[in-house]
Amino acid sequence: MNSTMQNISVEKVKKSKIEEVDFNNLAFGSVFTDHMLVCDYKDGAWETPKVIPYQPISLDPSAKIFHYGQSIFEGMKAYKDDNNKTWLFRPLENFKRLNISAKRMAIPELPEEFFMEGLKTLLEVDNQWIPQTEGSSMYIRPFIFASGNGFHASPADAYKFIICLAPSGSYFSGKVKVLIEEKYSRSANGGVGYAKTGGNYAGQFYPTQLAVAKGYSQVVWTDDHNHEYIEEAGAMNIFIRIDDTLITGPTSDRILDGITRKSILQLAEKKGIKTEVRKITVTEVIEAAKNGRLKEMFGAGTAAVVSPISGFGYKGVDYDLPELESSFASQIKKDITDIQYNRAEDPFGWRVGL
Amino acid sequence: MNSTMQNISVEKVKKSKIEEVDFNNLAFGSVFTDHMLVCDYKDGAWETPKVIPYQPISLDPSAKIFHYGQSIFEGMKAYKDDNNKTWLFRPLENFKRLNISAKRMAIPELPEEFFMEGLKTLLEVDNQWIPQTEGSSMYIRPFIFASGNGFHASPADAYKFIICLAPSGSYFSGKVKVLIEEKYSRSANGGVGYAKTGGNYAGQFYPTQLAVAKGYSQVVWTDDHNHEYIEEAGAMNIFIRIDDTLITGPTSDRILDGITRKSILQLAEKKGIKTEVRKITVTEVIEAAKNGRLKEMFGAGTAAVVSPISGFGYKGVDYDLPELESSFASQIKKDITDIQYNRAEDPFGWRVGL
Ligand SMILES: Cc1ncc(COP(=O)(O)O)c(C=O)c1O
Ligand SMILES: Cc1ncc(COP(=O)(O)O)c(C=O)c1O
Repeated sequence: MNSTMQNISVEKVKKSKIEEVDFNNLAFGSVFTDHMLVCDYKDGAWETPKVIPYQPISLDPSAKIFHYGQSIFEGMKAYKDDNNKTWLFRPLENFKRLNISAKRMAIPELPEEFFMEGLKTLLEVDNQWIPQTEGSSMYIRPFIFASGNGFHASPADAYKFIICLAPSGSYFSGKVKVLIEEKYSRSANGGVGYAKTGGNYAGQFYPTQLAVAKGYSQVVWTDDHNHEYIEEAGAMNIFIRIDDTLITGPTSDRILDGITRKSILQLAEKKGIKTEVRKITVTEVIEAAKNGRLKEMFGAGTAAVVSPISGFGYKGVDYDLPELESSFASQIKKDITDIQYNRAEDPFGWRVGL
Repeated sequence: MNSTMQNISVEKVKKSKIEEVDFNNLAFGSVFTDHMLVCDYKDGAWETPKVIPYQPISLDPSAKIFHYGQSIFEGMKAYKDDNNKTWLFRPLENFKRLNISAKRMAIPELPEEFFMEGLKTLLEVDNQWIPQTEGSSMYIRPFIFASGNGFHASPADAYKFIICLAPSGSYFSGKVKVLIEEKYSRSANGGVGYAKTGGNYAGQFYPTQLAVAKGYSQVVWTDDHNHEYIEEAGAMNIFIRIDDTLITGPTSDRILDGITRKSILQLAEKKGIKTEVRKITVTEVIEAAKNGRLKEMFGAGTAAVVSPISGFGYKGVDYDLPELESSFASQIKKDITDIQYNRAEDPFGWRVGL
């Protein structure tokens, strides 16, 4: 770790709580490591980050995060290979997206080295916590929120950038059956859908609860105008395979530009799978399902990796997807995780060693 | 205060900080009283609220408020009349709207008496703090946020309902010049625009900063499809007077159903002012401005009361509004504040004494 910023101070816990954790039974994002990275924005500048023991945050009741939703986050993972070396997957992409989100949410942009060096320092300090069990990994949550005070509905004058680490098992348990949404929407044209900001998630909870009550585990969002185009799911972009072509919608100001999504597009092309990035209508998907041309649908995201969809509901009708021997989803999932865990060549230069 | 719930406990501060406050120079929402009301949701139920000294809130870094924006709020005011009696304005409407917001944001609904009795108890405890200076009032901020922990993108299992009080001066200083938005949007069809949730405000900050840089103080939002219809402003509904008719857009799932807005509609009708609740296009407003029929525009909201708009910008052109001797805005502002401060009859039964 030659790259660590000389001035990131590290205050270690007196006693690690790692012994209390059952690494063979990890849920997603509910166990946290011994330390966290904290960095404050005050008087117009980001201060030098520091690593401190994982601890509660104390805020004034008027802190703007409680009132005006000024918050952004990222989701990343760290992977350990068989030689106990730690890898990140395209971390600079997360950093860039964090600042894209920051701009849209009127949050001051973060210097690259605070993010990259802060992350590396923290991962070094809590390195033992990175799970080595197959299917588990270290989920990394960088986030920024408005800590400045006052009820005036305007941007805060103080912010906190924090990174927490959560050794995690898989995001979904079991098959993913989705509901294509006809009434609610996730985002507006000219809105904040492309930003990874809290409000985009809270807004999905109620429609998702309604879908869950009907037996689905996720909502597939459609445009807010006619609910005609397939957009994305809860925390995943969506791929649809018709015949042998893999289709995904174009990104826009309504859709999160997923790093998994764009990596899959490159991987698929390299494998010789035909891909199309274009608008895809619900009607087209239903037609393809009816005439047997709809072969696969899957979600793609850092948390969910590649999650095959077993079927979908639309206007009260359920459509099942076939179970394929060697699906695109399983091939791609293998390829991408092999790169992530340093089990295969990385022709794209995506992997970054700690 | 016979109505106070017997079981709302009150823990008073040792020493009030009221002496430190300059009541003649109050900004908006930046000074807070000695106490706050706090009520926790745990294990599936809201616990009995309590009044405690105003103090910081301590949260785990994984608390969902920091990540998924599950938060809602209300904005109310308390007014003192010349006999030192305290009044609220349609408080039950705020309570009902809080629960409408709660439902959309997958937050557990709050029992009415926790809200009403909690509010009254708190206002009684900090009664001396209610400003009596003309133009000032006690701004009341009830809010609920997700305090439960974990990185899974799903509703929290714990929440906090808090009421804070902020003796406040006026929300705007000076004339309000607005920009009619052509690119960004506040909300989607089927989205959360009608809920008073944090994300709706954070999403407005960046476009508002761009407008401020061009010399405007607020953005007037338009629909996200064609930016054709006038919707509302930052924290205000919008009224437009063409000739002698007062027009405001209909509420929808994109627009906050403002209590000031609906009160003004009733007041105006009673005064014999012709009102229309209908969609109004930007084109219609520009036409009316060009041929001299556009007489007034004003914003309406609890914080901003009735705020006359001096002019607006659209597609690079500025349109000024005439300065009228006895505008609808000034008449209505007088009427509504006279009711609020118990200076006039209240034929609608809006006022509620403490
Ligand atoms: C809304 C949404 N879409 C898509 C994704 C996938 O993005 P990525 O592949 O960068 O994790 C995520 C997050 O992980 C998300 O929150
Ligand atoms: C977005 C928005 N529109 C309109 C209003 C006006 O509502 P009310 O009159 O109930 O205060 C508010 C809040 O105060 C608001 O936040």
